[in-house]
Amino acid sequence: MQMLTMPDSAAAKKLYDKLKLAAPDATILFDQDCRLAIDNQHMLDELEIKLDSDVKVDEKMPAAIQASRQWHPEDTIIKTAHTRLGGNQFTLIAGPDSIESVDHIFAMADAVKHTGATILRGGSFKPRTNPYSFQGYGEAGLKAHRAAADAFELDMMTEIMDTRDFALIDGYTDIFQVGARNMQNFSLLKQLGAQQKPVGLKRGMSATIDDLLNAAEYILAAGNPNVFLIERGIRTFDHQYTRNTLDIAAVPVLQKLTHLPVLIDPSHAAGAHDLVAPLALASAAIGAQGLMIEIHDHPKEALVDGAQAITPAELEKIMQQTQAIRLSLKEG
Amino acid sequence: MQMLTMPDSAAAKKLYDKLKLAAPDATILFDQDCRLAIDNQHMLDELEIKLDSDVKVDEKMPAAIQASRQWHPEDTIIKTAHTRLGGNQFTLIAGPDSIESVDHIFAMADAVKHTGATILRGGSFKPRTNPYSFQGYGEAGLKAHRAAADAFELDMMTEIMDTRDFALIDGYTDIFQVGARNMQNFSLLKQLGAQQKPVGLKRGMSATIDDLLNAAEYILAAGNPNVFLIERGIRTFDHQYTRNTLDIAAVPVLQKLTHLPVLIDPSHAAGAHDLVAPLALASAAIGAQGLMIEIHDHPKEALVDGAQAITPAELEKIMQQTQAIRLSLKEG
Amino acid sequence: MQMLTMPDSAAAKKLYDKLKLAAPDATILFDQDCRLAIDNQHMLDELEIKLDSDVKVDEKMPAAIQASRQWHPEDTIIKTAHTRLGGNQFTLIAGPDSIESVDHIFAMADAVKHTGATILRGGSFKPRTNPYSFQGYGEAGLKAHRAAADAFELDMMTEIMDTRDFALIDGYTDIFQVGARNMQNFSLLKQLGAQQKPVGLKRGMSATIDDLLNAAEYILAAGNPNVFLIERGIRTFDHQYTRNTLDIAAVPVLQKLTHLPVLIDPSHAAGAHDLVAPLALASAAIGAQGLMIEIHDHPKEALVDGAQAITPAELEKIMQQTQAIRLSLKEG
Amino acid sequence: MQMLTMPDSAAAKKLYDKLKLAAPDATILFDQDCRLAIDNQHMLDELEIKLDSDVKVDEKMPAAIQASRQWHPEDTIIKTAHTRLGGNQFTLIAGPDSIESVDHIFAMADAVKHTGATILRGGSFKPRTNPYSFQGYGEAGLKAHRAAADAFELDMMTEIMDTRDFALIDGYTDIFQVGARNMQNFSLLKQLGAQQKPVGLKRGMSATIDDLLNAAEYILAAGNPNVFLIERGIRTFDHQYTRNTLDIAAVPVLQKLTHLPVLIDPSHAAGAHDLVAPLALASAAIGAQGLMIEIHDHPKEALVDGAQAITPAELEKIMQQTQAIRLSLKEG
Repeated sequence: MQMLTMPDSAAAKKLYDKLKLAAPDATILFDQDCRLAIDNQHMLDELEIKLDSDVKVDEKMPAAIQASRQWHPEDTIIKTAHTRLGGNQFTLIAGPDSIESVDHIFAMADAVKHTGATILRGGSFKPRTNPYSFQGYGEAGLKAHRAAADAFELDMMTEIMDTRDFALIDGYTDIFQVGARNMQNFSLLKQLGAQQKPVGLKRGMSATIDDLLNAAEYILAAGNPNVFLIERGIRTFDHQYTRNTLDIAAVPVLQKLTHLPVLIDPSHAAGAHDLVAPLALASAAIGAQGLMIEIHDHPKEALVDGAQAITPAELEKIMQQTQAIRLSLKEG
Repeated sequence: MQMLTMPDSAAAKKLYDKLKLAAPDATILFDQDCRLAIDNQHMLDELEIKLDSDVKVDEKMPAAIQASRQWHPEDTIIKTAHTRLGGNQFTLIAGPDSIESVDHIFAMADAVKHTGATILRGGSFKPRTNPYSFQGYGEAGLKAHRAAADAFELDMMTEIMDTRDFALIDGYTDIFQVGARNMQNFSLLKQLGAQQKPVGLKRGMSATIDDLLNAAEYILAAGNPNVFLIERGIRTFDHQYTRNTLDIAAVPVLQKLTHLPVLIDPSHAAGAHDLVAPLALASAAIGAQGLMIEIHDHPKEALVDGAQAITPAELEKIMQQTQAIRLSLKEG
Repeated sequence: MQMLTMPDSAAAKKLYDKLKLAAPDATILFDQDCRLAIDNQHMLDELEIKLDSDVKVDEKMPAAIQASRQWHPEDTIIKTAHTRLGGNQFTLIAGPDSIESVDHIFAMADAVKHTGATILRGGSFKPRTNPYSFQGYGEAGLKAHRAAADAFELDMMTEIMDTRDFALIDGYTDIFQVGARNMQNFSLLKQLGAQQKPVGLKRGMSATIDDLLNAAEYILAAGNPNVFLIERGIRTFDHQYTRNTLDIAAVPVLQKLTHLPVLIDPSHAAGAHDLVAPLALASAAIGAQGLMIEIHDHPKEALVDGAQAITPAELEKIMQQTQAIRLSLKEG
Repeated sequence: MQMLTMPDSAAAKKLYDKLKLAAPDATILFDQDCRLAIDNQHMLDELEIKLDSDVKVDEKMPAAIQASRQWHPEDTIIKTAHTRLGGNQFTLIAGPDSIESVDHIFAMADAVKHTGATILRGGSFKPRTNPYSFQGYGEAGLKAHRAAADAFELDMMTEIMDTRDFALIDGYTDIFQVGARNMQNFSLLKQLGAQQKPVGLKRGMSATIDDLLNAAEYILAAGNPNVFLIERGIRTFDHQYTRNTLDIAAVPVLQKLTHLPVLIDPSHAAGAHDLVAPLALASAAIGAQGLMIEIHDHPKEALVDGAQAITPAELEKIMQQTQAIRLSLKEG
C-alpha cells in the first residue's frame, strides 16, 4: 500500500474520483483528512498522473492500512449509550460466560453495574470444542440478556458466530463480539463491517499481530470504524498451568501500530480464576484500554468455563486496584 | 463419554429409546453395531437401570466419540462418482489455488486428469488475510469449475466459508472443503453435517489433534459420515523457510485414533514449490491416504499463492514416485 | 515423589538414616522442618516400615520437590552484601549487556546506583548465536566489573557458560547468572549447586514451568538454596514486533508453585527499548519480586543488543513508576 | 558476511594475509577453493583495496557462512573406520538410550550390527530433566560401550554434556553427540571444533533452522569440518500424542542451505515406539541421509525412555523398508 497526503480534502477527493474511474477494480481508499491510498504502485505511472510537489508520499504502508496509525493518527473513540471506549478511557466489560436464566443474568447485571462496568457480556450462542457440550440458549438467552442490560442501564455485548444469525442478534445487542475461533471468518467480518454497531474482535489463538490488524481491516474496509481489539492469550507450547499465554506486550505493540482501542480478556488467557486478578492488574499497568472479565456468583455451578470465573466481590476488588494503579501512573 | 456394547442391535436400540425418553436433552448416541454412548455417567444410576452382564462398558471414551476407532473400528470409505477415498486407497486431489478463467480451469483439469487424480480442486471463494486481496470469482468460478470437472470426468471440490453460500455452492460442487481458518466455524460444520456430500476438513493452524477430531465430530454428530481430514501444517516458531510446519506424525497418530481418511496438503504446509515434492513423497511413505496439491501452468502468474504451485509435469513425477514408494512398501 | 511430615525433626532424621542405610542409591531427602521425601513408593513396604498415625503423607509431590511450596512453604529470602531478594522485596538488577571498558562500566555503575538498583549486571562471557559475533572481554571484563561494583557498593552479577570458567568467575562475582540457552546445562547447574553464592536462573526459550523448576531443583539438590528465577520471554509463533513473548502469567503461577523469588527481564523479552518500560510496569503490578534491565548511555553504540537497551534516565522513570504502582497496591 | 571468489587460490591467500595483517581482530575466512569471506563491508574501502574485475563478490552471505552451500557447494562426506556419512549414503545409527550393563550393550551391539547399522549409540552421561533421575553410568558405561563397538566392528557414538568431560570421553568414543539441550552450549561447541572427530549436532527444541546452522558454524569456525545435523522434533503447542513435532521439511530445507549431512532421530521426535517406523519411512522418502534410532530388547525394562524404544526385530524391518523406498526412488 502507498499513501498520498494531499494539500486538502478536495484535491484528495478529486484524485480519488479520477483513479476510481480509471481503475474501478483497484483498491483505492479515501479519507476526509486529505489522505488517499492505492494498492497498485504503477497505477499513477500508467495513468500518467504527476503528483504536485506538495503531495506527501508514504511508500511502505501496512496492508491493514485503515487500521494503521499512519492513516489515522488519533485514537479511535467508540461511543455507545452507556460507554466511551478508547483513548484514555478504561472500560470494563463483565458478565457470565453464558446466559443461564433470566434470574441469573439479572443478578449478574446488578453485580456488574455495582463494579462500575458499563458493558454486560454473556453468550447465547457458544462456540464449544465438542458438539455435545452446551451450545447456549439462543434467542431466549438474548431476550433475557437485553432485559437485564436495560434494567441496569448497561450496554449489551454478545458473540455472533454465524452470518445467518445476524438479524436475530442485531435485534437485541448493542455490541457484537467476534470470538477467537472466528477471527478469520471473513464473511462474518464483512457483514459486521456493513453495519455501524461496535465490534469487539478477539485475537485468534495463533493469530499474529498483523493477522489481527488485517481482520480488523475487513470490518473497517466494509465501512464500520467502530472496532476494538481484545487480546485473550495465544497458544504456545506451555499450557500446563494456564489455558493460553497472555501476550501482554501486544498492548503497547498494537497501540503503536493502530488507533483502535486495545482491551485484555484475562479470563480466557488464564483459564484459572486465581490468575484473573494478577493479569488484570498487569493489564492496567501496561496501559490496556479496558478489560473483559467473566464472573459468576457460584463459579462451580457455571454452565460453561466455571474454572475461570471470578465472583462479583473479586471483580470489585480488581476494579479498585486497577483504578489505584492507573491513578498512580497519572500522578507519577 | 461412556460406551456400552450390547449383545445385539435390538437391545441397544431398546435401551436407546428408553434413555432418550427419560432424558431427551442428554447426549445419547446409537449405532447399528450394538453400540450405545452416553455422556452422563450417572444417568443409568438415576434411572435405576441395571446392565446385564453381557454388556461391555468402556468408561473412558474420547469426547469426539463417533470419530473414534473404538466407536467405529473399520476404516471409513467415502465413495463419489469418480473416487474412492480412505482405507488402502491413495487419492490425489489437484488443481489451481483459485479458478482464474474458463480456459484456465479446463487446461488444469486436463492436466489433473492426466496425472491420475480424480478430484479437481479450485477456489471461487477465497479466504484472504487482507481484505484488498483477490477474493475469488464467486459463482462464475463455480460454473467454470463444474464444467471442467464434468468435461474431464473428475469430482469437483471447492471451499465454503459462509453458511449463507451453502445453497449456491451445493448447486455445483461434489465435495465441500472447510479451510484451516474455518475449522472451528461450528455453524458451518453443523450445516455440512446436515447433508451427505463429502467434506474435506483441513486442520486449523493451531488446532490440536483433539481439536481436529472434535471439529469432525460436529459433522458426524449432525448426521454426515463422509468426512476426511487434511493435515496442512501447523503454526510454530519457525517460519523462515516454510510457511507452516508439516506435522507428518499426525498421519499415524490420527489413523490410530480415528477411522476417517487422513490426507496431506503439502502445498500449504510448504509454501514453497520446491518443497512440495519431498513432502509428498514423505506423505506417501508414512501412509497418508492421499494428497491435495496445488498446480499451475505458469506459477508466477497465478492469482493466488503462486509461490507454492507446482507445474503439471512436476505433479506427474510426484505421482510416479509416490506410486513407486507405495508399491515398494506393499512388496516389502 | 512422596512427602512424609513427621511429628518432629528428630523422628524425621531417624527415619532418614534408616532408609539411607537400607537404600543408599535411592533419592531420600531430609529437611529440618520434620519433612522427609522418598522417590520410591514401595520402599516403605519393602522395608516393612509402618508409619505412625501422626505422620502426614502427601502422595503426589512434584518431581522438583525442594523447589516446591509444599516442601518449603515460606518465601526464600536471599541475602547478599547489598541486597535482599525475595518475599516482599522488589529488587532491581541493572547494567549494560556486556562490559565494554573500565570507564563505561564505572559510568553505568554510577547510573545504576542512582536508580536504587543494588545489583550491577554485565557480561564478560557472552552467549552469541553466531561465532563471529563479539564474545565478551573475558577476565579483563570481570576485573572492571568487580572494580565498578565495589566503587559504587553494588553486588556484581555475571553470566557463566562453561564449568571450566567457574574458578575464574567465582574469583570476581557475587551472583552467578545462568542464561536461557544454558538452563538445561545440567553439569553447570550441579556445579553452581555445589557452592553457596546466589544463582539467577533464566527460563529457557522453550522451557515449560516444570522444566524451569526442575532446573532449579538441580541447584537445590546439590546443596545451594540461593536460587532465583528470571522469566525473560518464551519463543512463540509471533516474533515480528517482539523478540520473545513475555509470559507474564508465569509470575503468579510460579509464586504459587515455588518459594523461590521470581523476577522479570523485560529487556530480552521485548528486544525493543520502547517496550521495556510498559513491560516493567506490568511486572510490578503482577507482583514480580524484581526486574533485570539492560541499560546503556548510548544504546546505538552498544557492542551487544543495543536495540533493547534503555538509558539511565529512562530507568529512573521506570523505578519511580514501579514504586508508585507497588505503593498503590499496598494501600488498596 | 560478504564472499569474494578470487581467480585462484594463491590470489585468495595473498589477499587473506594482507587483510589479516591489517585487521587481526576481524572475521576473515579463507578456503582453498579461491574463496575469501569478510564480515566488515567497509574493510576493503578503508584499506583502499580495489578488487580486480575477475573477482566475484557475493554481498549477502548467511552469518553461518562456512556451513553454507554457497561457501562449500559439494556435499560434505564424513569418513570413520566403519562409516561413510553424507552425500548419497544412508547411515543408520542405533543402540540403547543408555548403557545399562556390559552384557546388555554387547547384546544390543550384536543386534545393531545385524541390521546393517554402522554406528553404535548409547549414553553414559544422560541429560535428565529431573536431578533425581538416573544420570548414566559414566566411565564404566564408556568402557562397556567401547568394548561392544570393537567386538562388533562398529563406530561408537556418545553424548558429551560438559567441557570438563572431554578428555575422558575422547579416550573412548569415535563420534561425539551434542544433545538438543546443549545445541547452544557454545563453549562445548568450540571445544569440539578444536578436534577432528565427527560431531552429531542435534537441533534444539526451539532452535530455528538458522540457529542450528549457526551452532554448526561454531564447530566449523573452530576448525572441525566433520559435523552432521540431526533433526529430532521441535516443541510446539501439541504434545498430547507425540513428545515433539518432527519438522520433516527441515531435511530438504537444510540440504538446500548447507553441505552438511542431515539425519533424523525419529525416536525422540515421536516419544512413542509405534510412531518410530512410520517416521523412519517418511525420513527415507524425503531424502534424509540417515537415521538415529533407539532400540531395546525389553523396552519396558529400559532404564531411560523405554516408551520410545523399538526392538531389534522392528529395526530390521524398518531397514528393509527404508532400503525398498530408497531403491524405488532411484529407479523412478
